[in-house]
Formats: sequence, structure tokens, C-alpha cells
Amino acid sequence: MNTLAISHSRLRCLKMSVVHLKQIRLFSTTNLNCGELTKTQEENGIRRIILNNPKSRNALCMTMMNELLDHISLDLNNISLRCIVISAEGPVFSSGHNLKELILENKDYKSKEIFSLCSVLMKRIMEVPVPVIAAVQGPAVAAGCQLVAQCDIAVCTENSIFSTPGSHFGIFCSTPGIPLVRTVPRKIAAHMLMTGEPIKAEEALRVGLVSNVVPSDQLESEVMKICNAIKSQSKSVVALGKRFFYEQLELDIHTAYRLGENVMDENVQLIDGQEGIRSFAEKRKPVWKHNFDKLFKA
Amino acid sequence: MNTLAISHSRLRCLKMSVVHLKQIRLFSTTNLNCGELTKTQEENGIRRIILNNPKSRNALCMTMMNELLDHISLDLNNISLRCIVISAEGPVFSSGHNLKELILENKDYKSKEIFSLCSVLMKRIMEVPVPVIAAVQGPAVAAGCQLVAQCDIAVCTENSIFSTPGSHFGIFCSTPGIPLVRTVPRKIAAHMLMTGEPIKAEEALRVGLVSNVVPSDQLESEVMKICNAIKSQSKSVVALGKRFFYEQLELDIHTAYRLGENVMDENVQLIDGQEGIRSFAEKRKPVWKHNFDKLFKA
Amino acid sequence: MNTLAISHSRLRCLKMSVVHLKQIRLFSTTNLNCGELTKTQEENGIRRIILNNPKSRNALCMTMMNELLDHISLDLNNISLRCIVISAEGPVFSSGHNLKELILENKDYKSKEIFSLCSVLMKRIMEVPVPVIAAVQGPAVAAGCQLVAQCDIAVCTENSIFSTPGSHFGIFCSTPGIPLVRTVPRKIAAHMLMTGEPIKAEEALRVGLVSNVVPSDQLESEVMKICNAIKSQSKSVVALGKRFFYEQLELDIHTAYRLGENVMDENVQLIDGQEGIRSFAEKRKPVWKHNFDKLFKA
Repeated sequence: MNTLAISHSRLRCLKMSVVHLKQIRLFSTTNLNCGELTKTQEENGIRRIILNNPKSRNALCMTMMNELLDHISLDLNNISLRCIVISAEGPVFSSGHNLKELILENKDYKSKEIFSLCSVLMKRIMEVPVPVIAAVQGPAVAAGCQLVAQCDIAVCTENSIFSTPGSHFGIFCSTPGIPLVRTVPRKIAAHMLMTGEPIKAEEALRVGLVSNVVPSDQLESEVMKICNAIKSQSKSVVALGKRFFYEQLELDIHTAYRLGENVMDENVQLIDGQEGIRSFAEKRKPVWKHNFDKLFKA
Repeated sequence: MNTLAISHSRLRCLKMSVVHLKQIRLFSTTNLNCGELTKTQEENGIRRIILNNPKSRNALCMTMMNELLDHISLDLNNISLRCIVISAEGPVFSSGHNLKELILENKDYKSKEIFSLCSVLMKRIMEVPVPVIAAVQGPAVAAGCQLVAQCDIAVCTENSIFSTPGSHFGIFCSTPGIPLVRTVPRKIAAHMLMTGEPIKAEEALRVGLVSNVVPSDQLESEVMKICNAIKSQSKSVVALGKRFFYEQLELDIHTAYRLGENVMDENVQLIDGQEGIRSFAEKRKPVWKHNFDKLFKA
Repeated sequence: MNTLAISHSRLRCLKMSVVHLKQIRLFSTTNLNCGELTKTQEENGIRRIILNNPKSRNALCMTMMNELLDHISLDLNNISLRCIVISAEGPVFSSGHNLKELILENKDYKSKEIFSLCSVLMKRIMEVPVPVIAAVQGPAVAAGCQLVAQCDIAVCTENSIFSTPGSHFGIFCSTPGIPLVRTVPRKIAAHMLMTGEPIKAEEALRVGLVSNVVPSDQLESEVMKICNAIKSQSKSVVALGKRFFYEQLELDIHTAYRLGENVMDENVQLIDGQEGIRSFAEKRKPVWKHNFDKLFKA
């Protein structure tokens, strides 16, 4: 184990960003367990963030987005945290931005801040070192659809629908289109954005917006299946993998392979990398350290 | 309302390109209503451009491409124009380029001009400020398949098929592959291009080349459904949205979000943006201006 | 025909790389017909490379990867070679890297070399001038799944499954994720990589990882259908098309169209380009030269 070596590796960046994210908490005023519009609970490695404002159809108002950002950003380097699940109370997953906050003459008009905050929230989902799973139980509309598209993994119930109808209300879903067109085929995204027409759960599965559709009473077990698969892995290995995933997919394939070779080699040198390989050879369960310490050849 | 402010915004570019496109008409000799190989009609906001040379299987010869380009480019800043539908007469949608124009010894050989014009035509579909919909009623082959892949939205009948078999005739479908691989999964595009094998309507739906497949007698009603959804929106909001859609999908996601925040904020400031939000709050139909004028806070 | 002109065209690069690849053979010690872990046979234009180490589940150990690389790289400018098929003996297509070679304390530990060689192998599949087809008859795991994702075309049997479960053994499938996320929708790739859960053949078809799924006893006929479609074309036209396919898909669409115009125009000037067009006009079978010689207007 040689901490100096780590400080020169790209893994350091990962650690830094976790530290950075932790510092953000100092500026947060939201309590983890009793947000105004969200509920959060963390148990057995799973942080559940629940949109809990059914009467406004879980609109992504400033308060809601701030709470989401806080809950997603908290305590990220705590080893016990292994994945984040975003779900919702009520019949609607989320109806998107609160249009009232976008009326110019209203005293709480703050268009620039809203879209800036929304982008920070969406990018944070990619940046956090644990997988973020959307568990969708009903309509996900406009920025609500964006939230689903931006999560690492999404599953939904059979009655869920997805739409980006903003332009019918004068505001084209330009930013929801950003993760949408990176998730579903271009023509499907264009159809959704230009017509505002919704797609049903089965179509969302066909086009890759969700990776599974289940009856409502099986959503929880489907989510648990995903979480358990993630929890049986080393947190640091998953963090390293998620980080490179979002890095490499923006690159040309030759650069991706060039960087990927190093990522793989560094992964192999991790104590958790070696433990994983050995446990497989020895036909036993691995015992993870969940850190970025390396093992060096004697 | 402050026209000076608009002149400094990115919206100006959009207006400029519309003006530019209008000027192109001055150089066109094609009459809007009686092209040699196409029919065009415009009614209730929908411009219909119909490939009308069934005996040559609607080949995209120079004349056909020039007529298409003219009809697509005309009068784009006319508020009444809201979407463009490209369809075809006869059993074939389009068989692609006219191979006779590519025989070196023929007097009308003009390979360079053909592929240059074809690229201009294809890019124009992305550039025009209204959605362009392909309504496919039969085989779309080679550059005919390219035309479908390049449209913003495409729907087809159950008997439609799509193929890029150029290399069987010595000319690999290299340029048809450009919009194709950006529309369908990479391996599907490779299979189509390298084998020349067609895909059927149902497979085109599965891979995202079209967003709906209908029986032949329902193609018109399906197209009308899409057009009506577009027509109920503000032309300027759709134009702004379409433009950013094609801009952002070429960018890394962080740059896309950075630019997207501004696009959303500018959209909100439009008179039509504010009208849309208010009409929603007031539970009434919006009354659109269809322009890029902004509303400023008093 | 003007060889000087060719030497200044982009086609020259293609020839060069073929020459370069041929030279590599000089450094190879593997015999074409009796590799240690693979079998290779070439007949009627089809080179078949068969992973033949069922007792190690066709692990991609150094020896296996070296043999694959050699067999893929050999004799590429031989006109009779028209496509390469990669298949496997035994119940498993490939289980991925040999984990024993990644145990730090083992004498044959060579992590850096393994991932470097693997990248060279994967990129070679894109670089060779003939289509490479994966014919999958069972589980394709980790780097085995990467191999399938990286091939130009892939088909599989109904009992095939695909997974990237590396992180369960401490090594996140970071490099398998490179071709995977370029082949299937982003969320499907993320789900596979972050959970390690497999997808079945039918899902692989839905997400575009394979272009057809057949019963086991029809895999050979499905492969032959693809190979025959490729074999009826000019080798040089396919080579030109494959090369531009992988070039253009990395570019913004405007650059792609700009380069594509030239590629089409050069293709038309090839003797095989003109032969293809003429044979179509004359309703006869084309007679290909399979080279890059051009025909110039008298």
C-alpha cells in the first residue's frame, strides 16, 4: 500500500470530488430526514429519496430541486452508502418545473436560477460515486422526464408514461432533451420533443429509456434486485467504473481505449481488485475494503 | 419588447438563417406548385411535398433533389408554415440516386454535383425552422433511406422496407450511413450497410428509424396527428427548440447543459413563452405571436 | 486508370494499412491452421476463427488474444478473403479475460500487457478491410461481451446471454463498456455494467447488440446468409465503406457530410464503382476487380 502513488493517479480526482461534494453539505440548510417536499431514508446501504409533494404533482420547484441536490450530495464518501433510489409519492412521478416560478411578473420569478440549479442537479447525478436509480410509478413529464433520463438506471411500472410537452406551454423542453437524446434514438427524442406526445411504459422499454417495466406491486422488488446487485460489489470499484463510463462515452473510441487500458490496470492493482480476483479463484465471497488503496507486488 | 436586445441574442442567428433561406428562392427557377417531378401543396400550416415520379421509382435525380431543396427552403419565415411533410406517389417511396447520372461516359455525368447537392438537401432538413416529417408508404432505398433517416420525424406503413444496398451496385451507401448510424444502433446500421439487406417496417420501429408503423389507410391520419400536435404550438418556440436540439446533440453533455440553461432562459422571456405559461395557469388556450419578441419585466 | 492519382487519394491510406497489417505477420509465430487455443479455416472467401478452449470457457488469455489478433490480421489484402467470422466451440462463447493472469503475485501477472493487447485486438476488428461477424452460441461475458460488441455485425442463438459482471470480481468492465455503450442505449449499458446482470438473446436483439437471434441449428445458415451478401460485393468497395463508416460516426454531422461527398465521388470513379452501375443498367451480374483502380473519363 502506497498512498503517495495514489496521489499521482487519476483515482485521486475521484477522491477529491467526493471531498468536494462533502463540503457542499456545510452550506446546506436542509435536514436529511425531514425535507419540506421530500422524504429521505437510508438503510442497508440504500439511500431513498422520495419526491413527496403529490398535491403539486411533485413539481421540480426550486425548493424540491434544492432538497434533491442536498440529499443526493450528502455523505457520499461514507462507505455504507452504496446506491441512491429516487422515487415519488402519489399518482405522478414528477410534472417538471413549477411554471409559476417562470411567470415574469411574479415576485418569485427566477428563471436563470431555476435552469442553473436544474443543470447542477442533473450533472450531480452523473458525478456522485454511487449509481442513482429512478423508480418511476406514474407520469414523468418535462423536467420530470429529464430526471429519469439523467439517472444511471431507470425502471418503471406499467402505468408510467414519459413526455416532454413543454412547447405546448410555450417552453420547449430544450434541457430535458439533453439527457433524452443521449438515452433514446434520435427520432424518438425528436418526436417526443416536437410533438409533446407521451410514450407509454412499453415504448420506454423498447427505446431504452428504462431497462425494465413491472406491475406496480413489483416495483419495490425490482429496485431491490438492482440495489442488491450493486451492494454486493466494492464501492470503490463501482465508483471508478461509473466515473470512467461517463468519461469514455464522450470520447472518440481510440482515446477511450487508450485511457481505458490505464483504468483497468489501476483497477487491478486495487486491494479490492485483487480481493475480487482471489475470491473468485478461491470460490468464496469477497471481503471488500471499499477504498482506493493499492496492493503492490512484493 | 426590446428589439435591440434580440439582435444581440442567439435568436438572431435563427432569424438570419431564415432570411438567408428566403433569399435562396431568388435563385430558384422552380414553381412552387408545379414541379417537374414533385407536387407541392400548402394548406392549414402544412406544406406537403410529394415525390411524384413513380415510373423512375422516385429516384433522387438532380432535378428531383433540386425541387425538394427548393420546396423545403421556400417561405420559411411565413408564420402560417408550421411543418413540412415529405411523402411519395406510387409503390416506392424512393429508390435513391439515379444511377444513370453516375455513369462516367454519359453526357449528364456529374458525380461531384450530385453528392454535393444531396448533402445540402439533407442538411437543409435540419436547418429549416419547422419539423420535417417523412411519411413512408413503401421501399426507401439508399439515398431514399437517407432522406427518411435525415427527417426530424418518420412514420411508415406496414409494407414499407428500408435498405442501403448501394455496394451491390458498386457504390457503398457511405453518405446514407451518416444519418442512419445517428438514428439506429451502430450494429444495425453496419448490418444494413455491409450486407445491403433490408429491414421491414416492424424492425425499423424497433431500431428507432421510424416512430410509428400503421396500416396503409391510416398513414394520413397518423401524419395529421403529428402535424396537429406541432401546429398547436408557437412556431418560434418550436424553431428555437429544433435548432438547439441539433446543436446540443453534437456537444459533450456539460457544454450542452451550459448552453441549454441560456436557451431555456431566453425561451421563458419570449412573449410566446410567457403566454404559454399564463394560458396554462389560466386554463385557457394560448394565443401565440409566433415571433421572437421578448417580454421584459416592468 | 491512373495510379499516380490514387497515390494521392485517401484510398492510399487504406492500401497502406493493409500492407502494414501484412507485415505484422512476419512477427507472428502462430501457424494459421493450428493455433494452440483457436482453430482457423478459410474457404470460399470466409475466414472462420473459432475459439477452441472450452475447458477454460474460451477465456481471452494472452495466448488466445494473440492468436485472435494474428488470425484476424493475416493476408488481409488477399482478394479471396471477403469476411471474417468469429465463433466458439463448447457451451460458452467466451468468459472474458483469464483472471489468473491478473493476480499480482502470480509469475505470469501482466496486467498492463493484457489490457494493451486487448485494445489492439478490439481496434483491429474496426481496422481490417473486411466485415467481422460474431456468431455467438452461448454466454459472452466481460471481455467476451466486449468482443461481440466490437465486431461489425453480431448474430446469436436463442440461448446466448450477454453480461459485464466484472465488478463482482473486483474489476469493473470499464473497457468492455467502451464498445458496449456505443452499441446499446446508454441506460442498458449502465444497467449491465453497474449491476452485472445479464441480458438474454431477445433483449440483446431489442437493444441492438445483435441484429438477429436464431435457434441453435440455424446459426450457421444465418451466418452464411450474411457472408454471401458480403461476398457478392466488391471487396474494395466494402473496404472503402467500412473505413468511412467508422470514421464518420466519430464526427459532427456537418464534417461527416463534407468528407462523405468526396468518398462517394471517389467510389463512383473506381472501376468497380462503374462496373456496379453498368451491370445494374445492363441487368447482368457485375464482374468485380476488387481493387482501388480508377476509371477516368476519356
